[in-house]
This record gives sequence, structure tokens and C-alpha cells, in this order.
Amino acid sequence: MRAICFEDRLIYDDNRPEPAPTNGDAVVRVHLAGICATDHHITRGYMGFRGIVGHECVGTVETGPHEWLGKRVVCEINCVCRQCAQCQSGLSNHCSRRTVMGIRGRDGCFADLVAVPIHNLHEAPNAITDEEAVFVEPLAAAMQVVKQVPIERRMNVAVVGSGRLGLLVAQVLATTGCRLEVIGRNPQSLLFCEKRGIRARLISDTPAKADRDLVVDCTGSPDGLAAAIGFVRPRGTIVLKSTHAEPSAVDLAPIVVNEITVVGSRCGPFADAIHALARREVDVSSMVSRSYKIERWAEAFEASQQAGNIKVLLKINPR
Amino acid sequence: MRAICFEDRLIYDDNRPEPAPTNGDAVVRVHLAGICATDHHITRGYMGFRGIVGHECVGTVETGPHEWLGKRVVCEINCVCRQCAQCQSGLSNHCSRRTVMGIRGRDGCFADLVAVPIHNLHEAPNAITDEEAVFVEPLAAAMQVVKQVPIERRMNVAVVGSGRLGLLVAQVLATTGCRLEVIGRNPQSLLFCEKRGIRARLISDTPAKADRDLVVDCTGSPDGLAAAIGFVRPRGTIVLKSTHAEPSAVDLAPIVVNEITVVGSRCGPFADAIHALARREVDVSSMVSRSYKIERWAEAFEASQQAGNIKVLLKINPR
Repeated sequence: MRAICFEDRLIYDDNRPEPAPTNGDAVVRVHLAGICATDHHITRGYMGFRGIVGHECVGTVETGPHEWLGKRVVCEINCVCRQCAQCQSGLSNHCSRRTVMGIRGRDGCFADLVAVPIHNLHEAPNAITDEEAVFVEPLAAAMQVVKQVPIERRMNVAVVGSGRLGLLVAQVLATTGCRLEVIGRNPQSLLFCEKRGIRARLISDTPAKADRDLVVDCTGSPDGLAAAIGFVRPRGTIVLKSTHAEPSAVDLAPIVVNEITVVGSRCGPFADAIHALARREVDVSSMVSRSYKIERWAEAFEASQQAGNIKVLLKINPR
Repeated sequence: MRAICFEDRLIYDDNRPEPAPTNGDAVVRVHLAGICATDHHITRGYMGFRGIVGHECVGTVETGPHEWLGKRVVCEINCVCRQCAQCQSGLSNHCSRRTVMGIRGRDGCFADLVAVPIHNLHEAPNAITDEEAVFVEPLAAAMQVVKQVPIERRMNVAVVGSGRLGLLVAQVLATTGCRLEVIGRNPQSLLFCEKRGIRARLISDTPAKADRDLVVDCTGSPDGLAAAIGFVRPRGTIVLKSTHAEPSAVDLAPIVVNEITVVGSRCGPFADAIHALARREVDVSSMVSRSYKIERWAEAFEASQQAGNIKVLLKINPR
């Protein structure tokens, strides 16, 4: 099958062996997949991953239990043991033995076929298109912010970073009615916000006034925490969504002096994300800037790093 | 008067002008004062402070309103406006216009006399000695941990760092009945813990097993956060108590991946600390390793950095 793999560099392999599903796995034929910042971080050494890249997809179940065959699905990415202390305590996304699709110890979805535990499958309802369904994983991650931090309407909230994740987080936060602004570098992304009634401004035009109740770091950059510290009020909260391979050089004293709370936030609830898409609470279709056939993977990866593009998709077996 | 000042270096001035109290200030004649890690950080540039150092003391009110004259007092260190948004919202320790005794914009207590806002005074009850009263400020800071994070008996809690603050935090946590251990470098401090029934171990003998529900960083070191990350479980909490002048180089990815919460923690409730000392819930007297007359300030500062000493006091006008 065709696959995009990271070994010591990204390669395209059009003769990769098909996945050999273990007991409890389904095999999904991938329609569309989304390129995420994490995929780029992996190419810079994040998680020390080797194998087929990719963790955002929609596809059709081709092998697996009868009741799933032929169903259009999206796939949770954490593949868990259901037995360790974390799993038993309801924190299975933190399973100590987990593999993570395209990120840790398990092949990902930039391929014709991907093996996925049956427990990880969610049926994509007819109300959402393939182009929308491919956003379920990152939208779930964005929704994790409001799962972890209670948002009130009177709160001043800033999203720092106006990339793919920042725009999803901003749209989720906008549904809460809080006083929201997006602070970013990319004029095109900021325009995307303003069209949706979300206040947006360039970080270069934004004084580091420490008066926001909540700041969500979606910069994907080692400097994101320092920027967030500059915007959050004493006793305020920073949610860290950015993962990257590089260590950050950060002055932690303001966290102590201003008694700031920093909350790390990773994956989120798929069911909520599917529901939000089906109810049109979040607009993801207009975030798709470009779509490339998998054979044009190199152009796709390059395009997904260009500031002018928001989301870039790979067409693998489009319907 | 006599005073220890930080200009470009620490100096002893035996002819410093006496404080000129503004309206609302009392003047306190200092009996005893405690040397804290923050005093050392100030000598390395922390907060850019210039002036008389010191923020832990007990003394007698010499000038001020009638009802306070002659009273033995301890002094809160944050001097606040009572008018800004922070003060109005009940977070006066975070007053945007605050000065902080011996730390920010206001002379400290390593001197014969110190000017303090009347609102900052707390009477020291007879049940506590001067040697104990000088610990009210750091003990209050230690008690802030349990104000910010709810502690349950079933929780596994580690205090990293067995210096002055670590030993206070450990004693406060021990009163909650949680499963506690202190992880430090100093065998003498660890012995102090074990004598009080608190499990203690050398950091060099402690594998970085990420299984504690709560880790309190009392290392006072830029490396403290990284050490704490190694000990905390997924979805666990780190309380940062360390302030220092140097930036930290830290890999933030585990905070995101393991969805760790980091809570900055600074000053705490004086009334609770006085109460705990009066009820003998915390043993501070045996933490005093050495006491020096103020004239021997240089020896005192040196001694307070030696691993063998826990707390070093300055005798200024002892009773």
C-alpha cells in the first residue's frame, strides 16, 4: 500500500506492507487525512517516533467485526490497555502502556490502510462530510480546554497562536460566550476569526498586559509559555496546548509570584467534537486551504507550513 | 541605625537613616530576623531590588497608633493599595501597586527599625517565642500550598527540596495525613524529617517514577520544575514554590502530554501560621541552626548557604 513514513526523514513508500491487525483491531481504508503541527514536530525528533505518520483521518472499516464493516468512521488515537492503574481510574488517555497512532509505537493514517482498536472507532454521522470528519481529532483536542477549565461568560480569555489549533480552540471558546480574543501572527487567520465575530489582533500590536483570566497557548512554539505569562492576570490560568521537541528557556518566577496556574491539555472527547460538527457549532470546512493527493505528499507538507494556509489535507482514497 | 543593604553588593551600614513612616505606617523595632533563600536570590539580581534586605522578623511597635504601641508583632510583607482591581477582588497580595518588604520598592527588616503599614501587623501571642515568631512569614507561605490545592489522605505527595521551605511545607502537609515523602539532597534535613515521622529520601536514590498525585517544588533551583515533572503522575499537580533569578531550560512537552497542572504559590495566611505555631502543630525551633548578631551579618549569610545549617537568624534587638 501507499504510506508516508518517518525514518530518519520523511519518505513516501508505495509498496508498504498492509497492516496486520491484532485481535481487537479493525482495519480502516483512509479517505482523507489532515496534516497537523505534531507531524512536523515528529520530523524534528518529537517522541522519537518511527513509522507511518498521521493521526487525523476519516475512512471506512474494511476488516473487523461484522457490525462495523463498511461504516464510515473517525478514530481515537490513544490505543490503551484497559488494565493499568490509569485505565482503571478512568484516565485511559494516559494509559501507561498506550500506543498513539502515528505518534508513539503505532503506525499512523497517512496510508491506504490503518489498523485501529475497535474501541477507538466512532461512526461519522451523515450530517458531517469527510472534510469535516477529518477535523474530529483536533477539534476534540480543542474541546479538552473547556473540559479542563470552567469558562464563565464574564471571563477575559485570550488564545495565543492563530494556527489550526488556535482557530479551533477559539471557535470552541466562542460558544461559551466569554470575552474572547485571538492573538496571532498571521493576518489571514485573524481575518478568519473576525469574519466569525471573534476579536483578533496581531501579537506585535498587543501590549503584554497581564489582565486576562485565561490564556490558551496554541503557538506550537517553545516561546508560547513566556508569551502567555505576559498576558495572564495574577491568579489566572494558562492552558498549554503546544507540544514541541525543543526545550523552552522560560523565567518561571512570574508563575510563582503571580500564583498562575498552568494546565497541560492534550487529547479530548471525540463524541463532543462529532456532536459540535453535526450541529454546525464550529466551522471547519473553511479552514481547509489545500488538498493534495497522497502522491503529492511533499508539496502538501510544505504547504502546511506556509503561513497563508490554515489546514492542508491529504486525499488518500477520497469518496 | 544599623542595616544590611543590597546596592550592587550586600553592605552593612551602621549609620543608616531611620525610616520615615508615612501615614498609616507603624515603625517596628526588630528583635530577630530570618535569612531566606529569596535574600540570596536578591543578591543575584532577583526583582532588581535595592535597599535594606530582609522580610522575616518579629519586633515591637515603637511608633504608630496608640493601640499598637509596645505590642510584639510579626509583619505581612505585601504592602498594598486597597483600591486596585486586584485589591478590590480580594487578591490584595497581588495588588498591582504593591511594595514588598525587602523585595520590591520598600526597605526590609534586617535593620534596627522597619516601617510597616498598620494593616500588615499581627500581634504575636504569648504562646510563641521570638524564635518561633520569626517563622510566621515562611510558614504562612508553606501553608499557602494547602490553601491552593485540596489535599486528601489517600494522596501520594512528594516535597522536592529539603531546605528551610521544604521542611516547613513537609510539616504542614504532614498535618493533613496524606502519604508524604520528602526528596532532598541534604542528609541532615532528611534526618530532621525522619525524626518527625516524615518519610525522607535522597534524590540520588529516588527513581524518577511519575506516580505522585502532588509534587511541591521547594528546591529553590531552576531545575526544580524538571525534577518535579519526573515525579508527578499524569493529571497530577505540581506546586511551584521556588523563585529564582535565573531562567529555567525545561522540556514542557510532558506537562502537555501528561496533562499536568502547575500551580504557582507565593505568600500565605499569617493568621493560620500563628495559629499553627501556637498549637505546636509545626516544629520550627529545632530548625534554627545558628543565630548571629547583626554585626556578624557576613558570617550569617555565609552560614545560611551551608548545607549543614537549616535556618540562620540575625539577632538585631533581642529581648
